[in-house]
Amino acid sequence: MSRTEISSLGEFGLIDHLTRNFEIQNASTVVSVGDDAAVIDHFGKQTVVTTDLLLEGVHFDLMYTPLKHLGYKSVIVNLSDVYAMNAQPTQITMSIGISNRFSMEALDEFYEGVYAACEKYGVDLVGGDTASSQKGFVISVTAVGEVAPGAFVKRSTANSGDLVCVSGDLGGAFLGLTLLEREKKIYLENPKIQPDLEGEDYIVGRLLKPEARKDIIAFFEQNNLVPTSMMDISDGLSSEILHISRQSNLGCRLYEEKIPIDEKARQAAFKFGLDPTVCALNGGEDYELIFTIRQEDHEKILLNEEISVIGYMLDEEEGRKLITKGGNTFDITAQGWNAFVK
Amino acid sequence: MSRTEISSLGEFGLIDHLTRNFEIQNASTVVSVGDDAAVIDHFGKQTVVTTDLLLEGVHFDLMYTPLKHLGYKSVIVNLSDVYAMNAQPTQITMSIGISNRFSMEALDEFYEGVYAACEKYGVDLVGGDTASSQKGFVISVTAVGEVAPGAFVKRSTANSGDLVCVSGDLGGAFLGLTLLEREKKIYLENPKIQPDLEGEDYIVGRLLKPEARKDIIAFFEQNNLVPTSMMDISDGLSSEILHISRQSNLGCRLYEEKIPIDEKARQAAFKFGLDPTVCALNGGEDYELIFTIRQEDHEKILLNEEISVIGYMLDEEEGRKLITKGGNTFDITAQGWNAFVK
Repeated sequence: MSRTEISSLGEFGLIDHLTRNFEIQNASTVVSVGDDAAVIDHFGKQTVVTTDLLLEGVHFDLMYTPLKHLGYKSVIVNLSDVYAMNAQPTQITMSIGISNRFSMEALDEFYEGVYAACEKYGVDLVGGDTASSQKGFVISVTAVGEVAPGAFVKRSTANSGDLVCVSGDLGGAFLGLTLLEREKKIYLENPKIQPDLEGEDYIVGRLLKPEARKDIIAFFEQNNLVPTSMMDISDGLSSEILHISRQSNLGCRLYEEKIPIDEKARQAAFKFGLDPTVCALNGGEDYELIFTIRQEDHEKILLNEEISVIGYMLDEEEGRKLITKGGNTFDITAQGWNAFVK
Repeated sequence: MSRTEISSLGEFGLIDHLTRNFEIQNASTVVSVGDDAAVIDHFGKQTVVTTDLLLEGVHFDLMYTPLKHLGYKSVIVNLSDVYAMNAQPTQITMSIGISNRFSMEALDEFYEGVYAACEKYGVDLVGGDTASSQKGFVISVTAVGEVAPGAFVKRSTANSGDLVCVSGDLGGAFLGLTLLEREKKIYLENPKIQPDLEGEDYIVGRLLKPEARKDIIAFFEQNNLVPTSMMDISDGLSSEILHISRQSNLGCRLYEEKIPIDEKARQAAFKFGLDPTVCALNGGEDYELIFTIRQEDHEKILLNEEISVIGYMLDEEEGRKLITKGGNTFDITAQGWNAFVK
């Protein structure tokens, strides 16, 4: 495979190259790449802005993360935050810091993933920044979206008695990470042993190629349902339900048996000697949505198999607790993926 | 001085700590820090978005950059891009990646600078991300602004015959960098020698504590003046006039004697054996504005001492040239601060 040095293009040549085939999909994109800033017209709607910083060696490991998947995921994690506000993403900016160990071809792979995510979710890439880094790959994405005035959904507005719901299933991404880290360790000890990922596509895919729950937001709109609170699940179920509870000044009860865990994730957990529920509670990066709804809206979600009711909110003095399958009660504590605690 | 480890706060404690005293200044800030995303309502105006990535060792050197100044400058460089669209900045997001060599107190210093810039320019900090980095300080800032529909000014819309103008003076930041790099080298060779910055406040300040030209945008509005094209000067005058010329499909003439260079910068250039004009053309980081205006608007700018007319645009086949004080003509070439060319 040929290798083109990025330095042979220069910064502006690089930007031209990376953005050459990209077509604008949104009428709200007034000025895109190529000026001091992008201009966006949300035509009377409110603008939503969120940003994420991803660092090599901290948030991703290039030893087992294909660059195309990394580009895709970098976009997805930001879109997920926009959907979590009950909003529609419309634009992103993508900034990257790269060292000279990356070739133009490697960067093209990364952008293939970025563009695939943009296309799938109907989002325009409207700007960014490229910098040479001394060491490590740095990715900073900002996503912009729109929402009808006042229709956004915060974390702090749940009510006592509301039902707690989650989309999809949980714990899979953490199990994918556990598997890949195990295989990496084995490989480093003996490079002749080929990685054994047989039958583990699901959990590996959950980690490396997550999707954002655009479908759930569309479902809300079609069914005239407005959650009373919502956020996305990036740090694990425990951490997120505590955010909603604390910011809404409420308690909660979650039922272990109601937490949706895919059968393949469950099997992987048993193989690794892990408790699947703990993986769902404390593992991260599932990018599902957690939200609360009024009890009278319960029947609106019954037909959606992608939504599970896992508990309910109640007054703060009742505490925040998990009821296990065996009928025991435990306080929910945030373990989550806290970047600063080792 | 006491040292608080960042790990003792955790990520959410850290965010709470850093944002605890910050008050919202803009009615357009509907939802700020503490949710999945910020919500902004520009009330019928268009939204402007720009982003910059700053990496330690590439964009700044902590050996001679105080953290407070770095926080201030990180905001300014983004606001400058918003003003360069003829827009008003309203919000920023700030993401940082930090290693454990930084204490809470060091980070507080950085945020003092961030908040000082926000306060001075009337901008709200509405979100961001914090990550632990393995090595080096990573800063990613996104600025959001607003502009009346269609009132933004692009780079590509200059006309033949328009006057080329710049704000303030040029080359100072590059000379400040040259001085600080020289003193750093001397210090590293012999740590007993104290840095000699006597009388060099101006050029050092131009590098370490730049300002964005909010005043120029306000002047345009007060005087009913809309530039035909505009951008900010971050990579040097040569690079920027070439952007405007190429994107507008025009040629240009600049006059060396008209390029504004502060007397202190001129003196510093002579001291270092550098040509002050070359510093203005190829040095970067002045964060002044370059813009073009119709000839009939000339008298509107005459009374503003912060604006210099340095040349004019003409048809593309006339080329892009600098007329020296001696009357010679040179092609303008982009040297600029190209991060990928060594």
